[in-house]
Amino acid sequence: VTAPGGGAGDGLADARTAAEALDGRDPLSSFRGRFEIPDPQRIYLDGNSLGRLSSDVRRAIERAADDWATRAVEGWTDWIELPARVGDRLARSVLGARAGEVLIADSTTVNLYKLAHAAADLRPGPLVTDADNFPTDRYVLEGVARQRGRRYVEAESLNAAIEAAAAGVLCLSHVDYRTGALRPMAELTASTSSTDGLLVWDLSHSAGAVEIDLAATGAQLAVGCSYKYLNAGPGAPAYLYVHRDLVGELRSPIQGWFGRREQFSMGSGYEPADGIERFLAGTPPIAGIMAVDAAIGIVEEAGLARIAEKGRALTALAIERADAWLTVHGVEVRTPRQPAVRGHHVALAHPSAWQLARALIERADVVPDFRPPDILRLGFAPLTTSFVEAWDALDRLRRLLEDGAYRQVAAGTRRVT
Amino acid sequence: VTAPGGGAGDGLADARTAAEALDGRDPLSSFRGRFEIPDPQRIYLDGNSLGRLSSDVRRAIERAADDWATRAVEGWTDWIELPARVGDRLARSVLGARAGEVLIADSTTVNLYKLAHAAADLRPGPLVTDADNFPTDRYVLEGVARQRGRRYVEAESLNAAIEAAAAGVLCLSHVDYRTGALRPMAELTASTSSTDGLLVWDLSHSAGAVEIDLAATGAQLAVGCSYKYLNAGPGAPAYLYVHRDLVGELRSPIQGWFGRREQFSMGSGYEPADGIERFLAGTPPIAGIMAVDAAIGIVEEAGLARIAEKGRALTALAIERADAWLTVHGVEVRTPRQPAVRGHHVALAHPSAWQLARALIERADVVPDFRPPDILRLGFAPLTTSFVEAWDALDRLRRLLEDGAYRQVAAGTRRVT
Repeated sequence: VTAPGGGAGDGLADARTAAEALDGRDPLSSFRGRFEIPDPQRIYLDGNSLGRLSSDVRRAIERAADDWATRAVEGWTDWIELPARVGDRLARSVLGARAGEVLIADSTTVNLYKLAHAAADLRPGPLVTDADNFPTDRYVLEGVARQRGRRYVEAESLNAAIEAAAAGVLCLSHVDYRTGALRPMAELTASTSSTDGLLVWDLSHSAGAVEIDLAATGAQLAVGCSYKYLNAGPGAPAYLYVHRDLVGELRSPIQGWFGRREQFSMGSGYEPADGIERFLAGTPPIAGIMAVDAAIGIVEEAGLARIAEKGRALTALAIERADAWLTVHGVEVRTPRQPAVRGHHVALAHPSAWQLARALIERADVVPDFRPPDILRLGFAPLTTSFVEAWDALDRLRRLLEDGAYRQVAAGTRRVT
Repeated sequence: VTAPGGGAGDGLADARTAAEALDGRDPLSSFRGRFEIPDPQRIYLDGNSLGRLSSDVRRAIERAADDWATRAVEGWTDWIELPARVGDRLARSVLGARAGEVLIADSTTVNLYKLAHAAADLRPGPLVTDADNFPTDRYVLEGVARQRGRRYVEAESLNAAIEAAAAGVLCLSHVDYRTGALRPMAELTASTSSTDGLLVWDLSHSAGAVEIDLAATGAQLAVGCSYKYLNAGPGAPAYLYVHRDLVGELRSPIQGWFGRREQFSMGSGYEPADGIERFLAGTPPIAGIMAVDAAIGIVEEAGLARIAEKGRALTALAIERADAWLTVHGVEVRTPRQPAVRGHHVALAHPSAWQLARALIERADVVPDFRPPDILRLGFAPLTTSFVEAWDALDRLRRLLEDGAYRQVAAGTRRVT
């Protein structure tokens, strides 16, 4: 375990005081104060699903309204640049991509559709993903395959997926939304390329959490959302990335006016813009993009290396406590133990995971989430989660398992995002 | 002319005092106070391009931020319903559609792509629009035709468009973005249906301005934006409509998780939701939809009949003044003179339309917009525009034409939306 500091005993934090000590040494501890947390007693471990509102983002949303009120339509003189300009900032500060390779636009789903469809123009093979990939990624690929008359493959392992994607299009999540496993981007990109496949990464569960270097790994295509570790708000605009050598070859299936060369000529016939802008479609959501811009600013200030380091330490603490306290109650840690190959959430499998999640929310003031069929997911957003919160959450889960009260929670399904 | 009241002479308002009198009798005059207008001297005639910020919408955006901060991921319990719930409100109050026929989602471009693509599954014929339709509508149709191996037709007239769309898919704008002509929805829907075509209406320039009755006219499909007469903000979420008898037959090409039956089972294989929700794709933009909700509320309060009536009177005044003052300077009114067949903007054609637009903005404190090649467009948003503003704007344009100073404006193209 590479986490800073140590506890009183053999572990990282076998006593709560050790977790307090970790907070005392945490260079990011002040960032929590930048976020609006109306109920600080409640331990929020779902920042991997929906991040929290910062004062920076609130101000950005207010500024967007002021700008609209003041300039009205003349605001477009600057707004028109926002998808690419904020895309460049995300590229530089979060994704390790180059200027001109990233756009803020639409939703992750729509962006994946655009890129998977465009990639299928270049490769005659099947559309492939792994069977455990996030639902929308699977559904989108299946839909593109249906439209194009291609085979759709849901592979049972990463190796099988890469094999199936020869001369085709593969979509993988950088961090698995259930297990938290972080995939080796360079290696998988090279393997896919070696059989002439094109790989689209879904960065939703890694962007703003772990170090990403799209340029160094040779990544070809990527999409992702801004509402998890980037904290830009529910349904905030997503992003897409296209390697600069590839962009000229790809065409968006959705030919919108913002993606047209010389948009404001409003001329006849569609010609795609030269650069990444060809993947814009309709009128961009200005307040949403300004929120993303402000959200990136906080990540820049904190520094992605420190965020990633703290995330590894928080998950190390959680895994250590799960091993010490929970395995005896039938909990299984499904997240990789090597810090370098996991994201910032920990998956705990248990037959009553749904009841445990409900009991944590209703009786223990801890907000985790549940993923079918048996995963209790604890997300540790480094900018807003303290080591003591991580310690306390695992401690409260231990008590629930010990007293068995969670068994009284009625079965059901929870709506989660 | 059906406008209320009369002027001092033969016309509606041949003297400014007559315009003042019209404002005095205007039942909507108080609504202007609900909008943030930091520079009230500036006459904003571009609400047909981007409407203005109301205090209602500003509060809605703030409430969206509060809701996110307070409830975090648990907000999704309610947010999940917003696209359909606010869609129902738009259906009821603005579109004349039924519950379950409208969604707030994505951009107009993405929604048109979804509906045109889905409609092409049901009809084997070409994808058709009129050559004068809004650029993104033309580009989207062209793109869908290319993907499906269909013919794409840009017809030179409405009759030619309907003829070409036999057994195909037609897209028309309800109000023409250049001339302001309002198309007879029932008649064109019936004509298209009679040759087995499917018609998608673009309501961007009519929704929130004129009376629309999708149910009574038998309209099959429609899309539109919320940032013009609905005043929901730059790039605010758009909407789509599908007639209830048709929705079960149509499939969105973009198979996203929000469009799946039993979304949160996160199960394998895509099955579309039963109802209109099948046209959702990715995570909906919550703050944006709340802004649309508040924006609809103002239209409800004002009443669409009164809004439409005032819009007809404002455009009548503008056309009357153009006839009286501007035709002598080579200005041609391109907007229909019958109030019942126009929207709320007036198109004035002039060889130096671009220079006139710039001169109005820079020297006369009037904000119109320009549409290539020769249209000066004056939009009269009834909730925020007074009769005196309409009178003054035409008067200032008259003076520019008389003194010829607009000729000094350098040629160029303006970015407008």
